[in-house]
Amino acid sequence: RGRSARFVTAAPFQRAVIGLILLNAVTLGLETSASVMATWGGALTALDTALLWLFTAELALRIYAFRGRFFRDPWGLFDLAVVGIAWVPATGALSVLRALRVLRVLRLVSLVPSLRTVVEAMLAALPGMGSILLLMALLFYVFAVMATKLYGEAMPERFGALGASFFTMFQLMTLDDWANIVKPAMEHQPLAWMFFLPFIVVSTFVVLNLFIGVIVESIQA
Amino acid sequence: RGRSARFVTAAPFQRAVIGLILLNAVTLGLETSASVMATWGGALTALDTALLWLFTAELALRIYAFRGRFFRDPWGLFDLAVVGIAWVPATGALSVLRALRVLRVLRLVSLVPSLRTVVEAMLAALPGMGSILLLMALLFYVFAVMATKLYGEAMPERFGALGASFFTMFQLMTLDDWANIVKPAMEHQPLAWMFFLPFIVVSTFVVLNLFIGVIVESIQA
Amino acid sequence: RGRSARFVTAAPFQRAVIGLILLNAVTLGLETSASVMATWGGALTALDTALLWLFTAELALRIYAFRGRFFRDPWGLFDLAVVGIAWVPATGALSVLRALRVLRVLRLVSLVPSLRTVVEAMLAALPGMGSILLLMALLFYVFAVMATKLYGEAMPERFGALGASFFTMFQLMTLDDWANIVKPAMEHQPLAWMFFLPFIVVSTFVVLNLFIGVIVESIQA
Amino acid sequence: RGRSARFVTAAPFQRAVIGLILLNAVTLGLETSASVMATWGGALTALDTALLWLFTAELALRIYAFRGRFFRDPWGLFDLAVVGIAWVPATGALSVLRALRVLRVLRLVSLVPSLRTVVEAMLAALPGMGSILLLMALLFYVFAVMATKLYGEAMPERFGALGASFFTMFQLMTLDDWANIVKPAMEHQPLAWMFFLPFIVVSTFVVLNLFIGVIVESIQA
Ligand code: NA
Ligand code: NA
Repeated sequence: RGRSARFVTAAPFQRAVIGLILLNAVTLGLETSASVMATWGGALTALDTALLWLFTAELALRIYAFRGRFFRDPWGLFDLAVVGIAWVPATGALSVLRALRVLRVLRLVSLVPSLRTVVEAMLAALPGMGSILLLMALLFYVFAVMATKLYGEAMPERFGALGASFFTMFQLMTLDDWANIVKPAMEHQPLAWMFFLPFIVVSTFVVLNLFIGVIVESIQA
Repeated sequence: RGRSARFVTAAPFQRAVIGLILLNAVTLGLETSASVMATWGGALTALDTALLWLFTAELALRIYAFRGRFFRDPWGLFDLAVVGIAWVPATGALSVLRALRVLRVLRLVSLVPSLRTVVEAMLAALPGMGSILLLMALLFYVFAVMATKLYGEAMPERFGALGASFFTMFQLMTLDDWANIVKPAMEHQPLAWMFFLPFIVVSTFVVLNLFIGVIVESIQA
Repeated sequence: RGRSARFVTAAPFQRAVIGLILLNAVTLGLETSASVMATWGGALTALDTALLWLFTAELALRIYAFRGRFFRDPWGLFDLAVVGIAWVPATGALSVLRALRVLRVLRLVSLVPSLRTVVEAMLAALPGMGSILLLMALLFYVFAVMATKLYGEAMPERFGALGASFFTMFQLMTLDDWANIVKPAMEHQPLAWMFFLPFIVVSTFVVLNLFIGVIVESIQA
Repeated sequence: RGRSARFVTAAPFQRAVIGLILLNAVTLGLETSASVMATWGGALTALDTALLWLFTAELALRIYAFRGRFFRDPWGLFDLAVVGIAWVPATGALSVLRALRVLRVLRLVSLVPSLRTVVEAMLAALPGMGSILLLMALLFYVFAVMATKLYGEAMPERFGALGASFFTMFQLMTLDDWANIVKPAMEHQPLAWMFFLPFIVVSTFVVLNLFIGVIVESIQA
């Protein structure tokens, strides 16, 4: 077990895995092309299957070597999930899973130290953003419920149900084509701007505070 | 009175109120669905009314316990306003008030300490932004008046009246579809870009300074 | 002369001028409404003329009191310009000047200390931005010339002349509807994205550096 | 050789080159106008050719003076490239090179010290952004492959091939008209927002971190 742990964490082994993932990234990219698949489809699929077996063997070796420690490491669980997806029969309603196979390329993040550092730094910023994200969720819920009640009948496509309203409020927050949402609402109810403009101002201000929080924390870290 | 103050500020009581608000958030969300209302409308409305009585009782208890102090606390006034709205008969022109009932979910902000801290920090940034907001208002007023005089006749939908011009200038500042506003104006008056582009540059620069002010204050705080 | 200088800089006098400007702001706003003009047009125009005489008298008094110093103060020159505009006969080609009269409301900036501080702080940031603004101008010029040569014939509305190209490049930099500019260009020349995407990335990166420069200078000030 | 080096780096020589580049900038700008070309086409082309010979002579002198050092200086290579482009016969498939001639105006960056400082500061920020840019590339690749597999058939214009998907994902990241991309996808697959909204949030968050990294580095520099 100690030997397999040393083997798995050795630089040459890790470099080999990175190489295989990059190779797999190329094959998965090529598989999106119908003309490539028409010519090389068989070879690509065979290579894909071989790579999947190799990744599975690598995972099995790491689980054997680290046992419990493997499952307590979030990166280990991530690797397990993205490799495991490929073993689920992607038929019928699950055919969407086939598209998720490329997620395994994201394993590079845990294998390349500089990427890992960057991602861990970003994830470390999340807890400090918890309260603002909660506030944002509250704001969205309250405004989505109000928008559904106020404009659901007049603009069913945009505010017909809570889900549609959430989508539209998110669109308003990103300032994407917002005037074309607010103007039709103002035709139905001239004072609609008193509902939407404060939402736009407040939600972008909250996003700004989210950004500022991350900046300030980064500077003081 | 001292006992009721202790009771009202005790953690279990506050947790109970938070729970009731969350329950109310769910019922108010469900009420936006016509199909849910068709089946459970009666029960939801009854639950809503019961919750409103509970919130009213809680408010009455807090007013009894804190008296003047309650009315000097802005959060107390906010609670009073959002609960009071639900007692106004929402008929005729006031039917819009029915949609505002969900605002009471925002009471969570004053009850959950981390949310309260975040919101108070944001509100604390506002006074420092006063001068820039005043400058922005001045800028908008001056440019809205000019736009109405210059383009009101040619583009009545966008600049026909001061209100419409304010809306359009706000849209320009958010960079939403701005070229589709400036181009028709340039067809009417080829040099219109000399009016609109400076406004876009200056207003976004002022917004940037607003942001920078908040960032700098946060860092030096 | 000393007495008139003391008089002009005294708080009550300044407050009176601020009051007159605010009054004028209201009248100029009301004048944008055709219905108000139909009823009160005569009175508003008379009030406007009276205010213009008062502002002119105030300026004359300040010039008498401060002489050379008045003309060396940029705020003085600004006041002179915005009041002077109103005396130019706004007929024929100059009728556009009538709309510029509302610019005199911006005199509030020099009269209200907090506004003055904010604007002077913003203007103070400009010289430090000089090099980046020059770089931006260079970038725009080079890309506008290239765009005119590459896409002028295929898309005359967007790139038919240098001016149109400048406008379109500015629109690209603000990310306003940019895909609807780049896609038609790609239909004409499939590799057009190799021209436009670098411009978008570089120009927004330069704007970002402009912002960062202002932030860093503000923090270190 | 020493004398020619002193000559080439002397202020008057550099100022003369700057003057010639500015003159060339004007001629290249004028050449975009069909009416100017109809009248002055011959003179402009002759002037252009003369300037090209002067720039070539200047380059030759600098290469003679500095030899190896010239080719190790990236600014030297840049100058060589933009002047060299003009000597490639711009016919047939290479006619696009004619448009690139204006790139030589960018030589001002290496000749004007303040521009050079600004650009070198920006380029110095790039290596620190390497990891985040790599992460961004990974993210784009993974999501572009998934998007092509999931929506390639239903929306061939937007996701029909890997290249189209890259373009569309870039558009989503810039928030340009994103709702008009996500909505048609949701008509095809109601849960499509679970694919696109996380991409929008994550990719803008990564861009934010890119910005923050540059800001923090600038402040601590
Ligand atoms: Na936009
Ligand atoms: Na847009």
